Amino acid sequence: MKAAFYKGNKTIEVGPSDAISPGPGEVRLDVGFCGICGTDLHIFHGHMDKRVSIPQIIGHEVSGTVAEVGEGVDNVAVGDRVAVRPLKFGEPAAFDKGFPHVGKNLKFIGIDLPGGMQSSWTVPAYTLHKLPDALSLEHGAMIEPAAVACHDVRLGEVAAGETCVVIGGGPIGLLIALVAKQKGARVILSEINEQRLELTKSLGIEVINPTKENLVERVAALTDGAMADCVFEVSGSAPGVEVMTELPNVRGRIVMVAIHPQPRPVNLFKFFWSELRLIGARLYEEQDFEEAISLAASGVLHLDRLITRVDPIDEVQAAFEAIDANPGGIKYLIKCN
Amino acid sequence: MKAAFYKGNKTIEVGPSDAISPGPGEVRLDVGFCGICGTDLHIFHGHMDKRVSIPQIIGHEVSGTVAEVGEGVDNVAVGDRVAVRPLKFGEPAAFDKGFPHVGKNLKFIGIDLPGGMQSSWTVPAYTLHKLPDALSLEHGAMIEPAAVACHDVRLGEVAAGETCVVIGGGPIGLLIALVAKQKGARVILSEINEQRLELTKSLGIEVINPTKENLVERVAALTDGAMADCVFEVSGSAPGVEVMTELPNVRGRIVMVAIHPQPRPVNLFKFFWSELRLIGARLYEEQDFEEAISLAASGVLHLDRLITRVDPIDEVQAAFEAIDANPGGIKYLIKCN
Repeated sequence: MKAAFYKGNKTIEVGPSDAISPGPGEVRLDVGFCGICGTDLHIFHGHMDKRVSIPQIIGHEVSGTVAEVGEGVDNVAVGDRVAVRPLKFGEPAAFDKGFPHVGKNLKFIGIDLPGGMQSSWTVPAYTLHKLPDALSLEHGAMIEPAAVACHDVRLGEVAAGETCVVIGGGPIGLLIALVAKQKGARVILSEINEQRLELTKSLGIEVINPTKENLVERVAALTDGAMADCVFEVSGSAPGVEVMTELPNVRGRIVMVAIHPQPRPVNLFKFFWSELRLIGARLYEEQDFEEAISLAASGVLHLDRLITRVDPIDEVQAAFEAIDANPGGIKYLIKCN
Repeated sequence: MKAAFYKGNKTIEVGPSDAISPGPGEVRLDVGFCGICGTDLHIFHGHMDKRVSIPQIIGHEVSGTVAEVGEGVDNVAVGDRVAVRPLKFGEPAAFDKGFPHVGKNLKFIGIDLPGGMQSSWTVPAYTLHKLPDALSLEHGAMIEPAAVACHDVRLGEVAAGETCVVIGGGPIGLLIALVAKQKGARVILSEINEQRLELTKSLGIEVINPTKENLVERVAALTDGAMADCVFEVSGSAPGVEVMTELPNVRGRIVMVAIHPQPRPVNLFKFFWSELRLIGARLYEEQDFEEAISLAASGVLHLDRLITRVDPIDEVQAAFEAIDANPGGIKYLIKCN
């Protein structure tokens, strides 16, 4: 048994780990693949050292095969192939209004609790979603980010015939574009990296490089002045926040997907003037995982095209360094068994 | 016939004006009362000189009696008492998505076109809403700001049993509080002026002075940590924007009612973290006027209590100066006939 331990200071070490027998309501998985998320990179860079205990097994984009089930588990059986929704729900609070995925007592598995970058992982049974035969374990590890995209598009209430602009073409931005397109929307993606733009374009999404063209003018021209019904801010950048209010039409929605740690200047006048809406979106709910699995199985998310590289768990440090060195990459997976 | 002309430089002069015969689809009113809005004060202070032609007859919170109807007018008859929805709709644009009240070609009557602070006023017939017998012309002049409040509460989707916090207790904030209370919500209003706090409290609304108590802690204590389901930012102030994201619970809504001419730092992280929503709200639609009339007629808006002073049109300059001198006042009306 092996696990990848975050040790602080841009260091992830692979070391021995123990298989943990599942308690009541728990399941032990033989982990298949674990994707590396932007959040894992933030941890790697030390930006989350206040929240993450050291050493910690990170990783939360996980597929696996059920190896052992605890008492009372009836939603999965040994041998089932699954994706993990890495949310451990605590006591409900009045503040939460029945939304535990953003609740006060949520623990995120892979940040607040040991994650899936290990060969054997024990998790609550309620976190598991079965994978259909059509989905490989590689693709199963991409259900978690695909579920983020499904959640974002659902909260953005994207409808057929609408125009969406996605600001930022990393893994989540690209998946949002593909999910929104699947809803029947016209999707335009703004990204500054040419390698990502090439990939996005090859997947049938219109692209704009805002360092080469004026994004607002280009969207106006492409839509005959109708502009965007829904904008996704996925860049996490100040220019992204500056431009996001210039893109929507009347009653247009802006979905805040990115994490902006510091307050940013926002054009509140534009919210008033055109009755815009800003919709915060975080993580996912059960139905988003189910939708992600269904879309992934149908092939419309082109998951094969989004995988940049797969490394064995022993090479995890090299994989993190490779991501840092290649801003044009999309999804890096770690093979955990 | 008299009218109040904005002449620039904090000057409003009363002078003679002509009655304009209504063209097809138009109606000439004998104006009853015209309220003074915060926007009128902005005009008075010269802040809108780029938009307002000089001289201009201002005023857009108007009640009146139909004096003459143009060809093809069938929604009102001579003698009807009416409130005016001061919006002149232009050509619909794709950008507008069927919302002409925030459309590209909207003209606001009283800013972009001559307003109602005059004894005789000619307007499109579609701007008129009949007043029931139970409503005086004084109260009829307050239907416009009450419709703003109805619109804000409607877009905020306030439901019975919810907790609302209104930041700012001027005329609009106070009316929002009263409309939200009428929906069955618990309403807490934050305001720094003691005179306004006294009035608000006497109308059965809970109040907090954020210069004397910590607003966030106080709302937490009052709600046992459940916090607010809907927050209305009506203050137009930087502290209002800073605190607005600290008040809502999970999936809480923030309605942006105030005009913030400059971009303001906004805690976007909080939108992500608790899946908050920001809802821009401007003006009103037809149904908001109908609701405002119905609520006003039923007495629940306490319009008598909100009227600070009524001046004859000849004293309009003194009325504007009185508002500037009394930050605790609420609504000032001009008697136009």
